[in-house]
Amino acid sequence: MKFDVTITIALKEGMLDPEARAIRHALANLGFATGDLSTARLFRISIDAEDAAAAREEARAICERLLANPVIHRYTIEVE
Amino acid sequence: MKFDVTITIALKEGMLDPEARAIRHALANLGFATGDLSTARLFRISIDAEDAAAAREEARAICERLLANPVIHRYTIEVE
Repeated sequence: MKFDVTITIALKEGMLDPEARAIRHALANLGFATGDLSTARLFRISIDAEDAAAAREEARAICERLLANPVIHRYTIEVE
Repeated sequence: MKFDVTITIALKEGMLDPEARAIRHALANLGFATGDLSTARLFRISIDAEDAAAAREEARAICERLLANPVIHRYTIEVE
């Protein structure tokens, strides 16, 4: 059965996010006074698995082995 | 009033996504047989605005002026 899995990978709390900092700076220069700003990556993957739990487990393995760096990233997995 | 705005920016349908292609290839090499895979960027921005509609309008302006390239990107805005 096919599951649509959405993986969101963001920097852990407290990690420096130079991209977010640069965007906030650019927005300020354009006249947008924004507050907190954070960035993340989103991956939508179609996974063939027995059930939702198996799809989630495969997504977790994909994060650990390729997409995320567990030292600096946290990730969330949503299975539909 | 502060609003937490989530902006998702993805490539338009039909645009070549070389990053997604590279990730699928790498996953195949690691033994993960995934189906469709797409990538997107997520921005969480705290916006000070009169109401939710004004926050959404500011987020739209931020997308048009800085974050998205309207030629190749589509974006969605969620206001909380």
